[in-house]
Amino acid sequence: MKIYDYEGFPNPARVRIALAEKGATEKVQFVHVDVMKGEHRLPAFVSKNPSASVPALELDDGTFISECSAITEYIDHAFEGISLTGKTAKERAVIHMMQRRAEQGVMDAVGAYFHHATPGLGALELYQNKEWGMKQHERALSGMQYFNGVLATQPFAAGENFSVTDITLFVGLSFADFAKIAIPADCTALLAWRARMAKRTSMGGTGS
Amino acid sequence: MKIYDYEGFPNPARVRIALAEKGATEKVQFVHVDVMKGEHRLPAFVSKNPSASVPALELDDGTFISECSAITEYIDHAFEGISLTGKTAKERAVIHMMQRRAEQGVMDAVGAYFHHATPGLGALELYQNKEWGMKQHERALSGMQYFNGVLATQPFAAGENFSVTDITLFVGLSFADFAKIAIPADCTALLAWRARMAKRTSMGGTGS
Ligand SMILES: N[C@@H](CCC(=O)N[C@@H](CS)C(=O)NCC(=O)O)C(=O)O
Ligand SMILES: N[C@@H](CCC(=O)N[C@@H](CS)C(=O)NCC(=O)O)C(=O)O
Repeated sequence: MKIYDYEGFPNPARVRIALAEKGATEKVQFVHVDVMKGEHRLPAFVSKNPSASVPALELDDGTFISECSAITEYIDHAFEGISLTGKTAKERAVIHMMQRRAEQGVMDAVGAYFHHATPGLGALELYQNKEWGMKQHERALSGMQYFNGVLATQPFAAGENFSVTDITLFVGLSFADFAKIAIPADCTALLAWRARMAKRTSMGGTGS
Repeated sequence: MKIYDYEGFPNPARVRIALAEKGATEKVQFVHVDVMKGEHRLPAFVSKNPSASVPALELDDGTFISECSAITEYIDHAFEGISLTGKTAKERAVIHMMQRRAEQGVMDAVGAYFHHATPGLGALELYQNKEWGMKQHERALSGMQYFNGVLATQPFAAGENFSVTDITLFVGLSFADFAKIAIPADCTALLAWRARMAKRTSMGGTGS
């Protein structure tokens, strides 16, 4: 199985963390896609992943999976270990919902701000709508406030256990740092959760 | 278990079709939320569903689930019958990916056009960005062309079997009719698939 990605980019990071949490990083071959040179928009890549984005997963039978949440779904079911997407109907639904909220309200909101209201990826930005980008900046701040409230009452973003929601939210906040959207200082529960997450080895910490 | 919704609205339709496919409609109590009067934005509802949208699922233990894809995840695991979200790791990942493409590329693109570039829900529209709405109109047309290509080579939107992706795409096209985005006449595979889907009893057909 192969992962086509660009190390250091936010969406690819979501999948790399999921693999690390499952202890499966060594089971995957990483293929570099030169996004900054537009390689992901060339026919060779688009014919495999019509979304023209990284990351993308290629299974041994040649099937291509894009969208981090779908790739994580695969990784979670294909490897043993910690459950990232839940086991019971209720766990699965709660994690799915909270993952979407972290994606829409933080990760993708930050992304839309970055791509629309800043120079973004430069010449790769074919359409920008600055007003939309600024609106998404507002949305990202509300998303942070929302999760701050959530994390004031529970240890992880989707409840009592670590899940893919924590991964999406954590990477969303790193992307916010990069895009220079400051986490409001009154989001103390969010900041404390983030400091705890940063200790996980999957997220670059020492595990202590 | 309760579903808070507004009969006839597009996102609620996704959940009603999923319930009908599982033969579970009778097991659910429907609670009408008067969206047109803004009831979904009042504290009584927002305290249960911070997304301030319908549909929302309330479990017997008081847990609230919003987001159609999360609600369908619950329904699919809680009831017997046809699988809507897949069983193996690969099926789950492919359906998840294709569902997201139907959501982003058709359903939500049509929704963004409707809410931003038309009068939408009237006084309920607190922020409109017409240029963004028109861009999403373009996106909806590309989404239709994409699924036309997919359906030229396979019987259902995510492969060989009916799935939640077909529900999202079908409702997305109904929403497009309502928003007056015409399906391009050259999308013959998409139109043929739609005519087949419309026969399902879950989608208002006679099942023949
Ligand atoms: N929703 C997608 C987002 C993927 C995405 O936007 N990836 C970025 C890299 S972080 C990309 O490929 N950008 C290329 C571009 O903007 O042209 C996912 O979950 O994978
Ligand atoms: N992504 C959400 C969308 C829900 C949604 O937008 N629902 C519409 C009704 S079709 C709504 O509640 N609109 C209220 C509003 O726009 O204020 C889902 O999957 O449930």
